[in-house]
Amino acid sequence: MNDTTAATDALAALRRELGASGCLEGADLPARNRTDWSFLPQTSPRAVLRPTSTEEVARIMRECHAAGFSVTPQGGLTGLCGGARPVDGGVALSLERMSGIEAIDPAGMTMTVLAGTPLERIQTAAAEAGLYFPLDLGARGSCAIGGNLSTNAGGNRVIRYGMTRDLVLGLEAVLADGTVVSMLNRMIKNNAGYDLKQLFIGSEGTLGIITRVVLRLFPQPACTSAALCVARDYDAVLGVLSAARQKLGPLLSAFEVMWADYWHQATERVGVRAPVSMGDGSHVILIEMQGLDEAIDGARFESLLEHLLEEDLVQDGAVAQSLTDIAAFWATRDAAAEFANPEIIGPHISFDVGLPVSRMDEFVTRAKASLSEGMGCHSVYYGHIGDGNLHVVAWVPGADPQPIPEASRIVYGLIGEMNGTVSAEHGIGTLKKPYLPLSRGPAEIDLMRRIKAAFDPEGILNPTKIFD
Amino acid sequence: MNDTTAATDALAALRRELGASGCLEGADLPARNRTDWSFLPQTSPRAVLRPTSTEEVARIMRECHAAGFSVTPQGGLTGLCGGARPVDGGVALSLERMSGIEAIDPAGMTMTVLAGTPLERIQTAAAEAGLYFPLDLGARGSCAIGGNLSTNAGGNRVIRYGMTRDLVLGLEAVLADGTVVSMLNRMIKNNAGYDLKQLFIGSEGTLGIITRVVLRLFPQPACTSAALCVARDYDAVLGVLSAARQKLGPLLSAFEVMWADYWHQATERVGVRAPVSMGDGSHVILIEMQGLDEAIDGARFESLLEHLLEEDLVQDGAVAQSLTDIAAFWATRDAAAEFANPEIIGPHISFDVGLPVSRMDEFVTRAKASLSEGMGCHSVYYGHIGDGNLHVVAWVPGADPQPIPEASRIVYGLIGEMNGTVSAEHGIGTLKKPYLPLSRGPAEIDLMRRIKAAFDPEGILNPTKIFD
Repeated sequence: MNDTTAATDALAALRRELGASGCLEGADLPARNRTDWSFLPQTSPRAVLRPTSTEEVARIMRECHAAGFSVTPQGGLTGLCGGARPVDGGVALSLERMSGIEAIDPAGMTMTVLAGTPLERIQTAAAEAGLYFPLDLGARGSCAIGGNLSTNAGGNRVIRYGMTRDLVLGLEAVLADGTVVSMLNRMIKNNAGYDLKQLFIGSEGTLGIITRVVLRLFPQPACTSAALCVARDYDAVLGVLSAARQKLGPLLSAFEVMWADYWHQATERVGVRAPVSMGDGSHVILIEMQGLDEAIDGARFESLLEHLLEEDLVQDGAVAQSLTDIAAFWATRDAAAEFANPEIIGPHISFDVGLPVSRMDEFVTRAKASLSEGMGCHSVYYGHIGDGNLHVVAWVPGADPQPIPEASRIVYGLIGEMNGTVSAEHGIGTLKKPYLPLSRGPAEIDLMRRIKAAFDPEGILNPTKIFD
Repeated sequence: MNDTTAATDALAALRRELGASGCLEGADLPARNRTDWSFLPQTSPRAVLRPTSTEEVARIMRECHAAGFSVTPQGGLTGLCGGARPVDGGVALSLERMSGIEAIDPAGMTMTVLAGTPLERIQTAAAEAGLYFPLDLGARGSCAIGGNLSTNAGGNRVIRYGMTRDLVLGLEAVLADGTVVSMLNRMIKNNAGYDLKQLFIGSEGTLGIITRVVLRLFPQPACTSAALCVARDYDAVLGVLSAARQKLGPLLSAFEVMWADYWHQATERVGVRAPVSMGDGSHVILIEMQGLDEAIDGARFESLLEHLLEEDLVQDGAVAQSLTDIAAFWATRDAAAEFANPEIIGPHISFDVGLPVSRMDEFVTRAKASLSEGMGCHSVYYGHIGDGNLHVVAWVPGADPQPIPEASRIVYGLIGEMNGTVSAEHGIGTLKKPYLPLSRGPAEIDLMRRIKAAFDPEGILNPTKIFD
């Protein structure tokens, strides 16, 4: 039996087991499953498999393992680095039909869900149970929780609740050979042997297929306050961060900073209303607090702002008086979503880097100068500064395509020099693979390879991702 | 060259490299390095090696790898499960001379320390920098931070700050073959490839020797409040937990529960003053809050207590009016340290188990009955209930030795049946190794073995621990 015959037989077996709607091929193979939000070119997978249970995932893996098919797991396909993009001739394993809330434990504050469940559905189910699931990002309506785990998604409230990793108590995963590993722990404290779930979180589907997840829930915030502040320089930004941490403690739920050039793009080009005046300031800061009692904590928040003005740490500041105000403040931060519009910036290059908070302004100054002097590249900067995470939008006006490799060398080169990370929250996928060695040493990458070989000796699980 | 000659040569080489004070043998070999606080019998290691740098640790590992010596890393030797107890003929590698704070970054809120640094020294250094390191446990003066990482230590404030794992941003480790893996990340967000540090945390020195650690720091709490409350039944305990979470949110820093029989031992036998009257109640709850402002948050805490009394969730309650009161409240919880006194309970068996909060009282009722009916064994219960962690003290009056295997079968059997964990915070070591399969399935233990083989193919790092 030659390879083609064996492959045909394996696919036929999968088709029999999963039914026509579970195994899409040829003209039925959806275009959307051929790539993800990285906008890398579409590939030609052999089939898109859509299991409805862990047992079906296990059978698929046993069949693919025997046939030597590579398997790329897919959730909501909203990843930005190509992690969910299948390889030519491999199969895509979509979790879209494994969606649903299986259990909520109000006393233990946990929720058990299937991996294909959209994030927003989880947020809503938590709220309906009088609780709160804090993970939140722009793609909430489309992204699946399994994908959030596989990339260890960050988002807007990491400063208070941590990354996705910090919100996961247990999971179930299927290995490359079809073995089901059930680690559906529901306890915060469990030191019985290696914490294996950590390996499946953030490994972008290269070690196993996550099928079920036990999530931590939190009490619902009773009230939310927000302020926009203009700082004179980066030292003042650090002073504001220190004061916000001291006075709001764990109630601080977001600390976002926009550098002046970003602010001008957002308010003048995109046209978002500017609730504060930049004047001769250098940064605008968005501070958010999730409080426990409007009367008590609202006053606490106001007094923080008074303190910042008195100490001359900010030169202009506005406190939201309504939910509409809070939305307007966040709109200045979310304006980046409009930059792709040709009337605003048009085609551009996005970066998601991390570095110690204390060196962030130094990075911005040097990156801006190098991009401009070296290649006539404009750039603006903003991000989750409280978490050490900076987003960069860079573009050479009129260039098509945009000079991604040249700009990457400059930005990632600096990041490597400053001991930062080439990916703070988006993962590596294929897009950032060439730059991984700038953030991780040879001994680290060798260990990653050893783990990969121990879990998936044939290398069939999501090949070409993270490292070669 | 026979094995003995090779071993003698290897030891001589180590002695030359480390000097006399770095390589203790024969009569110089300290008794304390022969076991740990598990009180398992002393072993006969070949030598105790005391490196002063990562480079020396790497040289030791290369030498031991070549000579086939097994190596057991040691910190403060305060582990309770035998994880730091060397094997006969192996070497103990003590990190005691690798102690010190290397850097504090106030803006990034991080501290870099050597792995042998005692926990209390880290707490003090953080405080001197105007910051706070929240990990805290009874052995703070003796335990080393490397040991805290290797067991993923828990302690008193997990409900607010998480386990040791949650307090670590980066680390440096030396592998079995002497390779130094530097992962000294200082950022909260870093998704560049597998998060390898997670594997070294909680693996009890079986995958690598932790030599340096980057820790997260937090703002210092401005004030602390505490209360003791008497609940009528376990449903009321769950109601108090829910109310405390809702009203204190992330300011809630401890939620400890003592079952009635524990309370009687603590107050009547140990003789700790009882700040509340148990009456016909079933549980005493210790609630602690770390606040941001005494005036604001102190009043918030008082109003929580009023709410609990109004809602009839507690039948007696006392709020601490001073630091002395807070210490007196914690003394009721810390009385367990006196139970070993022959005047109180004397020889007994301790358990550190975890299970979902909602099933904890069911476990206590069933365990108590089985221990009593099956083997005339008394038992009392208390623990970090907010984190799902229960401590059990069990004893058969007058039995010497205490029937550890029989009691373990009853307690861990129930834990297995209720999907709990045989170790919430102390680790597995050798003491709990027979019971690991009650908490982890065969596929999980197989994965642990695969990882161990990938990291340490010769099996020289801390053999006989966690699994065989």
